[in-house]
Amino acid sequence: MLKVTFRFEHGEPREIFAQENENLLELARKANVAIDAPCSGNGSCGKCRIRLVKGALNSPKPRQISEEDYAAGWRLACLSRIVSDVEIEVPDIASAYKSRMKTADLSTGEEVAIFNAAKQSVVDAGIPFLNDYLSCVLELSAPTLDDTMPDNERVERALMEELDVEFVDIPHCAMVELAATLREADWKIRCMGRRDGDRFTLMAVAPAGDTSPICGVAIDIGTTTVTAVLVNLETGELLSRGSAGNGQIRYGADVINRIIESGKPGGRKRLQDAIVKETLQPLIRTMCSEANVSPERVLAVTVAGNTTMNHLFVGVDANSVRTEPYIPSFFHWNGLMARDVKLPANPEAKVILAPNIGSYVGGDITAGALMSMIWNHDEMSLFIDLGTNGEIVFGNRDFLMSCACSAGPAFEGGDISCGMRATDGAIEACTIDKETMEPTFRVIGDPGQKPVGLCGSGIIDVIAELFRCGIISAKGQFVREGKRVSQDVNGFDCYILATEEESETGRPITINIVDIDNFIRAKGAIFSAICTLLKSLELDVSCIEQMYVAGGIGSGINMRNTVRIGMFPDLPLERFHYIGNSSLSGAYAMLMSDAARDKVAELAQSMTYVELSTTPGYMDEFMAACFLPHTNAELFPSMME
Amino acid sequence: MLKVTFRFEHGEPREIFAQENENLLELARKANVAIDAPCSGNGSCGKCRIRLVKGALNSPKPRQISEEDYAAGWRLACLSRIVSDVEIEVPDIASAYKSRMKTADLSTGEEVAIFNAAKQSVVDAGIPFLNDYLSCVLELSAPTLDDTMPDNERVERALMEELDVEFVDIPHCAMVELAATLREADWKIRCMGRRDGDRFTLMAVAPAGDTSPICGVAIDIGTTTVTAVLVNLETGELLSRGSAGNGQIRYGADVINRIIESGKPGGRKRLQDAIVKETLQPLIRTMCSEANVSPERVLAVTVAGNTTMNHLFVGVDANSVRTEPYIPSFFHWNGLMARDVKLPANPEAKVILAPNIGSYVGGDITAGALMSMIWNHDEMSLFIDLGTNGEIVFGNRDFLMSCACSAGPAFEGGDISCGMRATDGAIEACTIDKETMEPTFRVIGDPGQKPVGLCGSGIIDVIAELFRCGIISAKGQFVREGKRVSQDVNGFDCYILATEEESETGRPITINIVDIDNFIRAKGAIFSAICTLLKSLELDVSCIEQMYVAGGIGSGINMRNTVRIGMFPDLPLERFHYIGNSSLSGAYAMLMSDAARDKVAELAQSMTYVELSTTPGYMDEFMAACFLPHTNAELFPSMME
Repeated sequence: MLKVTFRFEHGEPREIFAQENENLLELARKANVAIDAPCSGNGSCGKCRIRLVKGALNSPKPRQISEEDYAAGWRLACLSRIVSDVEIEVPDIASAYKSRMKTADLSTGEEVAIFNAAKQSVVDAGIPFLNDYLSCVLELSAPTLDDTMPDNERVERALMEELDVEFVDIPHCAMVELAATLREADWKIRCMGRRDGDRFTLMAVAPAGDTSPICGVAIDIGTTTVTAVLVNLETGELLSRGSAGNGQIRYGADVINRIIESGKPGGRKRLQDAIVKETLQPLIRTMCSEANVSPERVLAVTVAGNTTMNHLFVGVDANSVRTEPYIPSFFHWNGLMARDVKLPANPEAKVILAPNIGSYVGGDITAGALMSMIWNHDEMSLFIDLGTNGEIVFGNRDFLMSCACSAGPAFEGGDISCGMRATDGAIEACTIDKETMEPTFRVIGDPGQKPVGLCGSGIIDVIAELFRCGIISAKGQFVREGKRVSQDVNGFDCYILATEEESETGRPITINIVDIDNFIRAKGAIFSAICTLLKSLELDVSCIEQMYVAGGIGSGINMRNTVRIGMFPDLPLERFHYIGNSSLSGAYAMLMSDAARDKVAELAQSMTYVELSTTPGYMDEFMAACFLPHTNAELFPSMME
Repeated sequence: MLKVTFRFEHGEPREIFAQENENLLELARKANVAIDAPCSGNGSCGKCRIRLVKGALNSPKPRQISEEDYAAGWRLACLSRIVSDVEIEVPDIASAYKSRMKTADLSTGEEVAIFNAAKQSVVDAGIPFLNDYLSCVLELSAPTLDDTMPDNERVERALMEELDVEFVDIPHCAMVELAATLREADWKIRCMGRRDGDRFTLMAVAPAGDTSPICGVAIDIGTTTVTAVLVNLETGELLSRGSAGNGQIRYGADVINRIIESGKPGGRKRLQDAIVKETLQPLIRTMCSEANVSPERVLAVTVAGNTTMNHLFVGVDANSVRTEPYIPSFFHWNGLMARDVKLPANPEAKVILAPNIGSYVGGDITAGALMSMIWNHDEMSLFIDLGTNGEIVFGNRDFLMSCACSAGPAFEGGDISCGMRATDGAIEACTIDKETMEPTFRVIGDPGQKPVGLCGSGIIDVIAELFRCGIISAKGQFVREGKRVSQDVNGFDCYILATEEESETGRPITINIVDIDNFIRAKGAIFSAICTLLKSLELDVSCIEQMYVAGGIGSGINMRNTVRIGMFPDLPLERFHYIGNSSLSGAYAMLMSDAARDKVAELAQSMTYVELSTTPGYMDEFMAACFLPHTNAELFPSMME
């Protein structure tokens, strides 16, 4: 047996024993060492950089690593095999995946305003924020030799009267607390639970004086990022908010690689553990402790995620999502309880999943569609959620059509040599001086934060600016020279956003022609999906009266630039609305409102799903859109001015 | 810190660290070392014998240990305190508690005959053996591009049609298996689950060819012994049977000591773990593996136990059972699921508890009363379950009265110096030659098994025979001399059943005047309870037309001798019927028959509970019954012949 030691900038080293010739990335996964591998280990993305500190690896130099770095010990984990005892340095900064957990103050902030506005629209549209959860106080008499009713019946009868229900269920979690609570609290207790028609389920009991809120958790499980809010179920107040990287990322940046991984022996459990144990459990616990609430008081959970995320979260085989005839195991399934997937919540808490409508249009879109309000508009409206996939819903109060396109991870920094997610160090916005070609950019993080890489909104800006300044052609080729235009370590033409000195990592931050080409394909997929969907209705983009953009790409998204590069149609800017994370706000609505839950189910039922891959003309549309802004420049008249 | 090492005849030693002056019995409990302590460690029963092998204990010589044995290192664990590092020998044979697990062949045997007869009576009385569990095979078509129904809807719709139900619930345990099973089995699957009115809950799926039975487990949780059967839910066939010592025994032989122990910090969990983790989990797993059935196929569980056992099993505070006004936390509670207490079963399996009707008349009696059939008789009938408590139900088809008396553990070998439970080595039957005073006895176990001690039915015989032979008086005093009559190590008069040479343990097996006195109190409690209950109805024992005796005391019980000692009323012998473990057969009936479950609930509802301790005259009756056969010999006319 050979010993592999993983060392980190922070934290204890981790050791694992290996057989000769074992793959280092696989070993890291076994040892639960997070190494980013968006391409799932096929050597193409070059993200799984690690440094060999001691011992030897069988690891050829890949194109993504310079001679100099290779000499310094840098390797790609996915291309490395064990030949001796080794010590491996796993760089924090190289590892874009960090299960970074953040909780944010909710009393301020642009995002909360978006959230509240969305909620208000829903309520104004006649969907009341009323749910089944409640707490009430009972004042009981103690049993005596003449009043021999046992505890459970005593409480049941009082609840029937108090709540005017016919049946009261007391599950085990409440039953075991009943006797002690009644006696400690001198027979005055607070009962918390769920009403369901003429039944009430008693989920928790406490002494009458208890004022801790009854809570729900709404979760958006994104392919890349998971965000969640902890909510007071009685008032709707947001108690805390958290986000974390989806722990599944090290099994692949896109859903396809994760489905493949989940099909390997033990894979379903590995993928489920990655989202549940590594991501959701600590996220919910952190939010609860932030709000000073016990997880037992979490009486309901709602989840909005794409079809694959839903399957992997639940632990259901997802292979049918990616194989013909592309019928997933479930669209709408109502049987999940928090205990089934071991969420930190009351064991009787239901987990409501926003329904999927197809393999690639999932609960994130059905929940998001509710919040987009397009179902309530007379105007023709388009709702688009920019994630690892781009999902589109088009319609108005009379009809809804939806489709999805595989944009790839470019909007979240994947497939881009210096790409990263929108965390500290990411260049999120950029302008370039047409004369000097010098860039000016905004970096996420504390003032003075040096750039580490480029996130989605930053890439949009850089490409739009490179094109506007005539540095690149409509095909994405470099056509100007200057000190910022150079060649990278692989010999690709590139634009230098930050030199070695200017960057946080000591490596230059560049965008090369391969990145630009990848990005053009991503934006082309979006634009052609919109066109194809509309064409199937014999419409064109000019019919779009309102356009709602959602997703984690961030409120920093520059709509003018999205049009400039031909990603979004050339509409008057006032028609664009960034509605934030509509998947999360949709999950929140489903938590607080039974009517919202019903409405989402109704929307899912009524949405027509268009499978683009089998729609005639889609490939032609796509090819035509892989151009800045488009092969047919007439589609972008404002850009011609 | 001092180190305590426990050594065993078999198995690895166990070590634990201790503070000076810590109690050895408490330490053994912490270290999970099973030492029998029926008196819960107050020094009275003398059962917790251990041997000091190395080091020193602060441990005075108790009366129960001879000078010789004390010199050899024998101590009572409950009276020993730690003063140095010690090594302790825990004798297997001295420890009457062994979580002995047995599974028995069910195709033969007297007990199975009793079981089947009981079932037949119930069925004949119009209680059909029909339940809600079923399995069925579905032949589905695979999804296509034109038939895009996801797996769960496909199965739901087919089940609605097949079973003619309106709703189908697919809980998580079935949902996660669905996708893979459907595809592996080419869309022909076997569905197993529970029907409940117009709903069906799908609890398990398998390929259509699967023929493994769907099962239920019926459990009798006795204070001393736990017995259970694994049953085919569709046919009623008994698949395996098991028994084990109740792991709670080391916290006290009777329910009161266990309730007290459960009230200490962490006690509720300790007591629950002792019955669930130590006893039920291995018992059910053993039965399943014996029958070659996966625990996931256990779709239902029924439990009959006394009120305290029910509370401690569920994990509910039991203190109210023993404190005024003696109203337990529940009589009838229907909310328990197998997963709540982590039984090895399908996570959606319900656990049905036979209802309690009072603090000391529990589910073992309501389930047993069903099987006694006294509710279906015109004749006045009495049903008695002899356990650690004696519980009595009297009546006929028109009324039912019940009461309980604390007989103590004597019938199961507790409170008797050489007493033991009815396992290998127990003297279960005995006659004594009136001339020579030599005993002849039958020992449980393989041929040639030497006696270890005396179990309940053996004690009845020994005392009856000692009395018949004029060796002891009506007051239990020794009144004859001979080589079998001697004094034991504590100087008490005793009868020697087996000499040092004749016994398995190398210690003589004796019954002394204290034992006889204890036993007379136990049988007095039984008889006086019967009389008091009848007297409250202005009846006397002669009215009993049929008498049904149940309990683990064993089919070896000699009814003639029970009358001879004045334990049971002097009725013609043909009126006595031993009906075996009616608590277990009642649990079996509740598993197989919804009607039986309803009937038990109805019986519980209709039974009038008489609290003996507050019934005038009970103490007088009891005092009068503490005599062989009774102070009023006229009550036992057949004994005067």
